[in-house]
Amino acid sequence: MKFKSIEFKDDQLILIDQRKLPDKEENFICKDYKDVEYAIREMVVRGAPAIGSVAAYGVALSAIDKPLEDEFYKRCEFIRQSRPTAVNLFWAVNRMLEVMEVDKEINYHKLKAEADKIYVEDIKTNKKMAQIGNEIIEENSTILTHCNTGALATVAYGTALGVIREAHYTGKNIFVYADETRPRLQGARLTAWELVKEGIPSTLIADNVAATLIRDKKIDVILVGADRIATNGDTANKIGTFMLSALAKVYDVPFYIVAPVTTIDFDIKTGDEIEIEERSALEVLKVRDAQIAPLEMNVYNPAFDVTPHENITGIITDKGIIYPPFNDNIMKIKE
Amino acid sequence: MKFKSIEFKDDQLILIDQRKLPDKEENFICKDYKDVEYAIREMVVRGAPAIGSVAAYGVALSAIDKPLEDEFYKRCEFIRQSRPTAVNLFWAVNRMLEVMEVDKEINYHKLKAEADKIYVEDIKTNKKMAQIGNEIIEENSTILTHCNTGALATVAYGTALGVIREAHYTGKNIFVYADETRPRLQGARLTAWELVKEGIPSTLIADNVAATLIRDKKIDVILVGADRIATNGDTANKIGTFMLSALAKVYDVPFYIVAPVTTIDFDIKTGDEIEIEERSALEVLKVRDAQIAPLEMNVYNPAFDVTPHENITGIITDKGIIYPPFNDNIMKIKE
Repeated sequence: MKFKSIEFKDDQLILIDQRKLPDKEENFICKDYKDVEYAIREMVVRGAPAIGSVAAYGVALSAIDKPLEDEFYKRCEFIRQSRPTAVNLFWAVNRMLEVMEVDKEINYHKLKAEADKIYVEDIKTNKKMAQIGNEIIEENSTILTHCNTGALATVAYGTALGVIREAHYTGKNIFVYADETRPRLQGARLTAWELVKEGIPSTLIADNVAATLIRDKKIDVILVGADRIATNGDTANKIGTFMLSALAKVYDVPFYIVAPVTTIDFDIKTGDEIEIEERSALEVLKVRDAQIAPLEMNVYNPAFDVTPHENITGIITDKGIIYPPFNDNIMKIKE
Repeated sequence: MKFKSIEFKDDQLILIDQRKLPDKEENFICKDYKDVEYAIREMVVRGAPAIGSVAAYGVALSAIDKPLEDEFYKRCEFIRQSRPTAVNLFWAVNRMLEVMEVDKEINYHKLKAEADKIYVEDIKTNKKMAQIGNEIIEENSTILTHCNTGALATVAYGTALGVIREAHYTGKNIFVYADETRPRLQGARLTAWELVKEGIPSTLIADNVAATLIRDKKIDVILVGADRIATNGDTANKIGTFMLSALAKVYDVPFYIVAPVTTIDFDIKTGDEIEIEERSALEVLKVRDAQIAPLEMNVYNPAFDVTPHENITGIITDKGIIYPPFNDNIMKIKE
């Protein structure tokens, strides 16, 4: 890997400030749990698995000054509420709190050790997923991807982009189309940056272009990530994902979700139960500092959409590829 | 109308510089045919009918210094080649040259009079189209539109946005969703600007959002413009239009093209014959002055796509609404 998106060192969490990419490579340093909450909420770091790892260190940092129990749990709740959609955030905070249940004491070092475990596991999980996913990538494939699901969205390697990386590393001749992914432009800013750094043959497109590529049989397979997966397979992911899945269905292009099992929310049955985060109008009215619409204009800015399970060919996880019927096969993975 | 997008005065063509909207309302003044060619190519003015009117004045200005016949025709050809997709451009230049065929002399005043006729006709055509289109807009409709098809895309009033204007002026309670329309953001910059100026209830969305609105039955009708229509009904329009049409078909939402009969290219049978303009990578890599992707990244940037006739409910023209079978009914309009 040519960069580290997340690193914990000397009691500080060091993040690449993803708001500034691709033109500036700057670090954002979290000295306490408040900085961590800010980093998640303001999208210094984003991507469901990355948010999980960062939140875990946030819980550890919540304990560093030995707060009273009430205060500690308040801080953890503050971190948990930083964003509403990604299940990895809740999963990581819960897992960290399980450490507390065993020890009944607020021990920074034990919490940090657990966060380190989550960190290392995420890398292993991603590599495993990438190897499993690579099996479905044929030689000379053209792959369409959306948003950023790479090393910047995880601790390292990536989910959907991890599979692409693995295909490239194993010498397959592949070509990638990356959607720019408005409004936050994670495809243009982050995926393109990773693709250029890795030297993977690729082309950036406006989100409006994907439909004609899909229709014209220019895409062999679509790979995207996930922020939360219901037990029937319905998947919340970056806004625009549903559009791709609907077109893939009409034009018969394989459409895969790539996500660790931790992204499955075993507590919800369908996508209807997933809360979709609505973000600020300014994300649409401005691009970085440039104003692109009248500031008086109303905006509807959902960050995610839900792809119904019937549009999904398979879900590539670290425990294997889940195929329909998802209701049965997702529960089997849990066991 | 609260502004003039095109005005010819004192031998000069005055255009609102649409590249600078919505934050700056500045004029771009064309003193000669070269300025006109630049204004079309660089999208100071855009929108098929507006390009037609501006090109006509460009032909007139080509004659102002009484050039030799060869030079005059060279200038007209230069204007004709400024952009490749919009048929109104070729139509307007051809119509202007017909004046020459009658007179056999290069007469600036006669050419200017013909350009004035095209200008006035465009306004009349748009108003007629708006009235015809308004018949299909029901009370309490929510309308989705793409790109800018308003007074800025025509001499005045607009095509698809002209229908929306007419529905609003006639007191109908309507609500408009405007796609921002990457990469050039004509929806965000221009349509939103017109909607705010007119006080039409509306909301701006990233292009990625439209699919879920269509699926969730939040849209009653989709209205878009056209850059060129083949005689089988296949329609070239701003990139992203095909995506909307495909989703509209799956989720059974009426999808209408609004365009004057002059946008029909009676010389071509299907959309396969339409040349799709590919524009600069910089339109995607940068938004205004802000860099949003690594400059080394490859880009595929087609300005238009072709919506197949089978996805189109009807074509609203100044001579009535054309319904399928388009092959027959488009030829009837010609007669």
